[in-house]
Amino acid sequence: MSPADALPRRTREVRLVARPRGLPRPDDFALVEAPLPAPRDGEIVVHNEWISLDPSQRIRMHEASTGYMPPFPLDRAPTGWAIGRVIASRAAGFEVGDAALHAMGWTEHAVVDTTMERPPARVEVDAETPARWYLGPLGWSALTSYVGLFDVAGLRDGDVVFVSGAAGGVGSLVVQLAKAAGHRVIGSVGSAAKAAYVREELGADEAFCYRDGPVGELLPAAAPDGIDVYFDNVGGDHLEAALEALRPHGRVALCGAISSYNATGAVPGIANLFNATGKGLTLRGFLARMYEHRMDDFRRDMRARLAAGTISYPETVVAGLERLPAGFIEMLSGGNVGKMIVRVRPEGERAA
Amino acid sequence: MSPADALPRRTREVRLVARPRGLPRPDDFALVEAPLPAPRDGEIVVHNEWISLDPSQRIRMHEASTGYMPPFPLDRAPTGWAIGRVIASRAAGFEVGDAALHAMGWTEHAVVDTTMERPPARVEVDAETPARWYLGPLGWSALTSYVGLFDVAGLRDGDVVFVSGAAGGVGSLVVQLAKAAGHRVIGSVGSAAKAAYVREELGADEAFCYRDGPVGELLPAAAPDGIDVYFDNVGGDHLEAALEALRPHGRVALCGAISSYNATGAVPGIANLFNATGKGLTLRGFLARMYEHRMDDFRRDMRARLAAGTISYPETVVAGLERLPAGFIEMLSGGNVGKMIVRVRPEGERAA
Repeated sequence: MSPADALPRRTREVRLVARPRGLPRPDDFALVEAPLPAPRDGEIVVHNEWISLDPSQRIRMHEASTGYMPPFPLDRAPTGWAIGRVIASRAAGFEVGDAALHAMGWTEHAVVDTTMERPPARVEVDAETPARWYLGPLGWSALTSYVGLFDVAGLRDGDVVFVSGAAGGVGSLVVQLAKAAGHRVIGSVGSAAKAAYVREELGADEAFCYRDGPVGELLPAAAPDGIDVYFDNVGGDHLEAALEALRPHGRVALCGAISSYNATGAVPGIANLFNATGKGLTLRGFLARMYEHRMDDFRRDMRARLAAGTISYPETVVAGLERLPAGFIEMLSGGNVGKMIVRVRPEGERAA
Repeated sequence: MSPADALPRRTREVRLVARPRGLPRPDDFALVEAPLPAPRDGEIVVHNEWISLDPSQRIRMHEASTGYMPPFPLDRAPTGWAIGRVIASRAAGFEVGDAALHAMGWTEHAVVDTTMERPPARVEVDAETPARWYLGPLGWSALTSYVGLFDVAGLRDGDVVFVSGAAGGVGSLVVQLAKAAGHRVIGSVGSAAKAAYVREELGADEAFCYRDGPVGELLPAAAPDGIDVYFDNVGGDHLEAALEALRPHGRVALCGAISSYNATGAVPGIANLFNATGKGLTLRGFLARMYEHRMDDFRRDMRARLAAGTISYPETVVAGLERLPAGFIEMLSGGNVGKMIVRVRPEGERAA
């Protein structure tokens, strides 16, 4: 434990100050200075280096988020994954200088209770393993791709795999994992440039831009013999198109529904779910946290793939906490390729 | 094999002569006399005693039946399960007098190819096992209830079970099987009389009539602590209400969607499927034929339950092939309790 008087008394955080209507706007957020309380027994203080931005955080900005995690309160920093260095510890298992992965979200410093339900984790950072990988290829978002494909969708030999949001943080890894396992992979994305990226860099057999026509026509054109697995990051018309294209005993991993996150009114429902009956389809929803028991296996496997160079993990880096809101809005507009992360204090911009 | 000249040359069948708009009308069907071809090698001739009526047959009366079994052709007898006596056989394994269960549907006599994809089955009929049970508690409809509950929904200790169409052919058995396994069971039905029946005769803990209010209010009132399994025979608002009421890791057996079968236009979609993600729900569609490998186990278990008197199998019997269309319409209007079957030629009405 370090002496309390060496700790900063104030920190900076990005707060949610208004519930967005549709696509969030910059003034739904505010960068504020806030007091940093002294740690109590069982707590650590972390100076964040990297913060994860995730589309699912948009869901929790609604006043109600039925069936999902509870809404974010107003005038507080949204929670979410972040990683930094321990600068004070009153908790067993953490020492000053340790890298700590935690869920306290959009703030420069966080006082983290190590006894909470989702406690912080001490992780190994070294020359081969940069800290930001714990938000990226070794993090929860990548675990989502991994268990969604292997555990939830139960990938089997010969499956044809369709992934929406294929250039995004979750989808880009799904494409590569499925290709590495020898599958035919079709991706959908939001621009022609992303489609090229998904084909050329990530190795997908087919990729289409969903803005080019009805997904119900683009998907069967890309997968004329149908699909067996659909990894759903989008919902809506993508899910309906997949339900038509799925072959008997097909499986859907219901991961996200970004098409509805910014909706301001009622969203059209899924009108053709009855396909599931006639074709014996399985649709399974999941959050990565439900598969926390797979984290060690997943990290071991991913480290090996990263070391072998068989996986690339695209990132879009937002430089500086003050740019977090703009980055979050960009992500929800489809502006990112790969996982979007915030570098809390860009190098060379050290505080005085 | 019996001499061909002893066989009837003509039979009677109920044909689909128009594609129903909404609830079928009597003149969508026609009872006609038709030539009965002589059996060829590999074929048997069956004189039907009982014909099964199933809500799913309505789906196949639409011009297109996306993702389900192919549409019924016009001016032919719809196919479906029936049982009768073999009156001629040119096939190994069948002798005159055998009871044969087959899929040739709405006809008095059927020439059945024993080499077809879904071949007829010779079944044992005796004093304890009336032929109609092979359309009822030992038949495909009951197999639907059985595997839907145990295999598809994966019933587990402590699960609270919700069943729609709880007084119907499939639902009435689901209620009893779940109660026999010690579960809390909630049923929804279409009338107060059926609700009383489901509670008092079938043993459900709660039953409500869905016409009494929004299902989204009636279900949580009947299951204030939520449900774990939903056996869906109805779709639509029932499925949406269940998605709200399901607890984490809940499971849905997608069996039927009778609420949409008579729809004449676009049906509102399922607007809250995203519940599946946050709660880790599994929705699995199925047809009984996908679980044919369970038939022997199922029949053994059901025979034991029937012998022990622990299961009752309600039936609504339609007297005479000529009344089949009226019975079918009645079933789709919710007029039946339990499984609806047609007695092809009522006793005492033997043909001259």
